[in-house]
Amino acid sequence: MTATDYVHGYGPAEIRRLSDQAETLASLLHAGTAYPPGSRVLEVGCGVGAQTVHLVRGSPGAHLTSIDVDESSLALARARVPETVEFRHANLFDITEEFDHVFVCFVLEHLRDPHAALTYLRGLLRPGGTITVIEGDHGSAFFHPDHPAAHKVIDCLVTLQRRAGGDALIGRRVEPLLTAAGFREVRTRPRTVYADRTRPDLVAGFTRDTFTAMVAGVREEALAAGLATQSEWRQGIDALNRTADEGGTFHYAFFKGTATR
Amino acid sequence: MTATDYVHGYGPAEIRRLSDQAETLASLLHAGTAYPPGSRVLEVGCGVGAQTVHLVRGSPGAHLTSIDVDESSLALARARVPETVEFRHANLFDITEEFDHVFVCFVLEHLRDPHAALTYLRGLLRPGGTITVIEGDHGSAFFHPDHPAAHKVIDCLVTLQRRAGGDALIGRRVEPLLTAAGFREVRTRPRTVYADRTRPDLVAGFTRDTFTAMVAGVREEALAAGLATQSEWRQGIDALNRTADEGGTFHYAFFKGTATR
Repeated sequence: MTATDYVHGYGPAEIRRLSDQAETLASLLHAGTAYPPGSRVLEVGCGVGAQTVHLVRGSPGAHLTSIDVDESSLALARARVPETVEFRHANLFDITEEFDHVFVCFVLEHLRDPHAALTYLRGLLRPGGTITVIEGDHGSAFFHPDHPAAHKVIDCLVTLQRRAGGDALIGRRVEPLLTAAGFREVRTRPRTVYADRTRPDLVAGFTRDTFTAMVAGVREEALAAGLATQSEWRQGIDALNRTADEGGTFHYAFFKGTATR
Repeated sequence: MTATDYVHGYGPAEIRRLSDQAETLASLLHAGTAYPPGSRVLEVGCGVGAQTVHLVRGSPGAHLTSIDVDESSLALARARVPETVEFRHANLFDITEEFDHVFVCFVLEHLRDPHAALTYLRGLLRPGGTITVIEGDHGSAFFHPDHPAAHKVIDCLVTLQRRAGGDALIGRRVEPLLTAAGFREVRTRPRTVYADRTRPDLVAGFTRDTFTAMVAGVREEALAAGLATQSEWRQGIDALNRTADEGGTFHYAFFKGTATR
């Protein structure tokens, strides 16, 4: 990227705006998560480090071990996150040492057996250690103006994720999953994003650039699987985009669960 | 009702439990609503006074005028609410005096023209006066275990309310409706009920006794309208009841909007 590209496409104001949006969502999800200095924290499925940066900020004195199965994502994470984090290329079932706390964000939704994962993670915790789980739930998405075509494209994403072995509706299952894995003191609460014209940063940053962009991102896969026609897809994305127009509203709930071994 | 009936069916513990549940929901909806002593407050569509009691508690010094079009509901409201409230048998369009604040809860969802109502109410407010609107949105209901039959019976209620001229999905429209009626400083936020086994009062008081009971209440009407078969209805209510069983979860969002004339 040249300096000219940067000035045109990503001026300081735009960078600040994008950063503000990420901050808004991060505050929503990370509020209440802070680990004591010296505590051993395992982050499972850190990906490119999107949550890792906020974990470091919220718990600057903790010793963070962040694992992922994808080496290229880990390379990006290493580039954006302070050197104090110990990144490791590993599957969670390969981890054997003890931790004080485990943090799992947007990971269970992609696993074939989230129960087995939580049960294994519980075994890594010292007695009294805690787990924090954050997951979305696409069934929480409703909006104005409402339109069947919008639900159709969201359902395509849910179906594709199910066929890949995951569950895009897992938010509502966080409490039952934690309890079934043997955790105690389970506390689960929705963390809700609601956007309307009085919150333009959320309209742009969440309705349009996060949720609608995420659905739009599976277009080729959905069409290839015959889950929607090109026309249905266009109508659905158009309908989602209209919820980001003047007078539109958008609701989405994440779920955050905390529990003790 | 005899004293024996009372002791058997509604013992002091049961009354306290039911009261606690109502309190939980009232706290959620009324938090932040308090009018200054001496201020003139209009409550539109007070019904049997379910919200009036909380308005009085939250704003003991305000002068509250509570109106409803149903005389028999007003009689019940008069019996349960302190004499300081001025109850009036009236349609909102019959009101002509000026108010400092207007409070509208679970009313717009039943109106054929909520825009006309809000525009008229805005005209009753002194300059700088405020309106508070609280509405539910049945599209916000999602739950575990999920089941198509449960959505089917909820859709029956939504359809019946639409045929009666209302909108059971109006929560998401609170902001656009307030803005379109000319209000300024519109601020709308979801107020979310989330119930799981760790909150047994909400499971019983909201999932089962409020939401599922409300849907179950339109059985005869839904069957008569041919919106569902008896079998579909039973399956749907059974599925909703399972969300109140051990391991079930339930999510519902109300919307609270405040705005200035």
